Amino acid sequence: MSEKTLLSLAYGAAFTGGERAVAFSELENLTPQFKNGDAWLRKNASEGKEGFGWLNLPKRNMDDVQTLSRWLATRESIVQVGIGGSALGNLMLHGALLPPYWNELSKTKRGGPRFFMSDNVDPADNRAIWELIDPESTAVIVVSKSGSTAETASNFLFFWEKLRDTLGEPAARERVVVVTDKEKGILRPFVDETGCKRLILPEDVGGRFSVLSCVGLLSAWALGIDCKALLSGAAAMDEAIVKAGSILENPAWILAGLSYLHMKKNRNLNVLMPYADALERFCEWFAQLWGESIGKDGQGSTPVRALGAIDQHSQIQLYTSGPDDKLYTILTVAQGQKDIALPAAPEKAFEKLSYLYGKSMDELRNFEAFATAAALSKAGRPVAALSISSLDAYHLGGLIQFYEYITGMMGHLMQVNPFDQPGVEQGKNYTYGLMGRSGFENEAQEVRTLSAKINERTVTL
Amino acid sequence: MSEKTLLSLAYGAAFTGGERAVAFSELENLTPQFKNGDAWLRKNASEGKEGFGWLNLPKRNMDDVQTLSRWLATRESIVQVGIGGSALGNLMLHGALLPPYWNELSKTKRGGPRFFMSDNVDPADNRAIWELIDPESTAVIVVSKSGSTAETASNFLFFWEKLRDTLGEPAARERVVVVTDKEKGILRPFVDETGCKRLILPEDVGGRFSVLSCVGLLSAWALGIDCKALLSGAAAMDEAIVKAGSILENPAWILAGLSYLHMKKNRNLNVLMPYADALERFCEWFAQLWGESIGKDGQGSTPVRALGAIDQHSQIQLYTSGPDDKLYTILTVAQGQKDIALPAAPEKAFEKLSYLYGKSMDELRNFEAFATAAALSKAGRPVAALSISSLDAYHLGGLIQFYEYITGMMGHLMQVNPFDQPGVEQGKNYTYGLMGRSGFENEAQEVRTLSAKINERTVTL
Repeated sequence: MSEKTLLSLAYGAAFTGGERAVAFSELENLTPQFKNGDAWLRKNASEGKEGFGWLNLPKRNMDDVQTLSRWLATRESIVQVGIGGSALGNLMLHGALLPPYWNELSKTKRGGPRFFMSDNVDPADNRAIWELIDPESTAVIVVSKSGSTAETASNFLFFWEKLRDTLGEPAARERVVVVTDKEKGILRPFVDETGCKRLILPEDVGGRFSVLSCVGLLSAWALGIDCKALLSGAAAMDEAIVKAGSILENPAWILAGLSYLHMKKNRNLNVLMPYADALERFCEWFAQLWGESIGKDGQGSTPVRALGAIDQHSQIQLYTSGPDDKLYTILTVAQGQKDIALPAAPEKAFEKLSYLYGKSMDELRNFEAFATAAALSKAGRPVAALSISSLDAYHLGGLIQFYEYITGMMGHLMQVNPFDQPGVEQGKNYTYGLMGRSGFENEAQEVRTLSAKINERTVTL
Repeated sequence: MSEKTLLSLAYGAAFTGGERAVAFSELENLTPQFKNGDAWLRKNASEGKEGFGWLNLPKRNMDDVQTLSRWLATRESIVQVGIGGSALGNLMLHGALLPPYWNELSKTKRGGPRFFMSDNVDPADNRAIWELIDPESTAVIVVSKSGSTAETASNFLFFWEKLRDTLGEPAARERVVVVTDKEKGILRPFVDETGCKRLILPEDVGGRFSVLSCVGLLSAWALGIDCKALLSGAAAMDEAIVKAGSILENPAWILAGLSYLHMKKNRNLNVLMPYADALERFCEWFAQLWGESIGKDGQGSTPVRALGAIDQHSQIQLYTSGPDDKLYTILTVAQGQKDIALPAAPEKAFEKLSYLYGKSMDELRNFEAFATAAALSKAGRPVAALSISSLDAYHLGGLIQFYEYITGMMGHLMQVNPFDQPGVEQGKNYTYGLMGRSGFENEAQEVRTLSAKINERTVTL
């Protein structure tokens, strides 16, 4: 695979599945829907319609983000407060493109700030972060479109009070960056009053599609990731999708179509299994993108986060011998970094392992991926093999754009809106009710009634 | 909930689900199967039958493990080489019971060695671990029953060669602990030749059920976890299960029965969603236990690893509004540690967040859990709420034993053997074939044919 190749998809074994097999002709027959879907995405994106803006992000000017990141890069530590779409994209970029064990490396080896994500409302974790940083040399980034997300609000209140009490107010505010909506949003008064650093979340981009906006790029740039390459890979992917005329030339259409057709045939799970520790967080990011975008109207396919080769020793028994309810995508990186050559002639005691002598660890890992794909195929399970030539910012940017496009297209095929998330509100409102927030008295009543129902049968050991 | 309470299960909302609802009478009708299953587990365990030994682990003598752990505790770093059942249990124990960001804490705050898991065959990760440790003050634990697991063998070859080349052989061997089978196993010759430290993996316990044997306890003890309390919690759980006469008194039977009945009614996913960062790895451990034990003969239910409140902002849209194909267990810790009181009177700019003023972060988290359970119930999804009174070694030990018992019982209900994993072999053999291991020439041929099929349709961008 050439360095300029964005990705490659091998899908000859995606049509198995006995009586519930998907035929290539079914995929081909979706061509009109793909064309309509593509036009629908592009038209709305160009009109600035809410939710569709991710399609244009690779070409937007990000100079303000890069400028602010230069200041962040001088900090000893960065704490980002955010959850869901304001956290998973950052963790995905850092996991994929920074050296492993980033925070544990020496300052010289890192060459950038340590990074802490305060996403969950976990007192132990938040306290631990506070104890690990030096407030003087820390920056706190808070990311929330509405500012009303209870977890983000709560964690920011904690860090803000600590900063202010430790450093005093003017020094505290100098260390805060607010990333929020242009006008609305509960954090606006704070920004206006304190005059702290701020960036504006693009109005036409939803949280789970925002990784290539300031949400994902600010910390990535600060930590030394080449965001220009990330954006140019994403742009190249979009151009390649536009250029690909027929379905035979378009892996995004193929993977969207396979996902849709297998889902329709009761394969209600979609397994993404990369063979690279650095891509573990990619699956978390994909899981939100996929689950929240298309889990609607009683439809949807559940994203399954897997990691090769680890899950061979955890989930493969189920995958090959359990129910035939999944479509599998095995994701590999053709050219690994920092490969290890295993010892060529170790002690005689290891002679039963001689098949490993002198071999490359990266080669072993890729063989494991091929073996897993083959074992799934042998068991009659539909499997596709996706590959990128190397794990760098350019190819990751392409992969991000690829999956965002597939997700949007999947929404079109299913005739659901892939860019909203109405099902998230109920739980939020119940939480407000339980917390005694004014205006949520009815929800408080309702959640108590439902809790009583849950507790109606209780058993204790 | 009293401190001595092991756990509490509220399951009044587990019987919803429209036409595919499960009735309480169906659960009750399983009573004979539960009784038979319990007798089957206990009889085989007492006879030492392979696979059933986990039931007796809480009462076994672990003095040799504790003794060896005292030496390990003096080391600066521990590297454990193992995968699947030889890794996930350790990560679960450490995640649940050690302070967060363990490796990043100062030596004084930790009071025990740093810990690195070398599980995946990831060259970048393994190199990073090597660069972070001082070989002189490190111990390497390698855990593999057969020793033939390619990932573990490969990673151990890497670390062994590095240790030997850096320190010389006598010093290198002093720093290695091998945990393997009594007689068989590819690592035996190494143990015999070098005379290195060793522990024996119990013959009657399988990998995914081995966390309360030397596999999980050795590193846990070395890092300061109270393993006696862990074992006594597990023993107390088993006694409580024995004492519980009817299904009404037995949460393990109830949760096994609900899992089984909902699976039979096409809810082929089992979501475990703890509300505590410390329990994130518990889900990984559970996923192997559940997936590998019951994913057999075309049956099985897929474990879904979730984490509250994070996945409210990732998966809840799908959970409440997607297909009704899941049983949900929300797991909470009644009494959190290191709680945070949010500021009582922060800046006026935050006034829209006044509902959070002075509140407890831990309370907010638990309200989120109740709100999520209520939202799922309102959406007609079956949900059970499991709670432990505090997250300490005693209660975690109980929870481990609880889920192992449920998994064994689930195998009995499904009439599959929950203690083998024949479906894992195919992929292993294909890997051996691709690596050119002698005796696997047929597999090499077969995997190449299957790969050709996968590559038959390929598209590149």
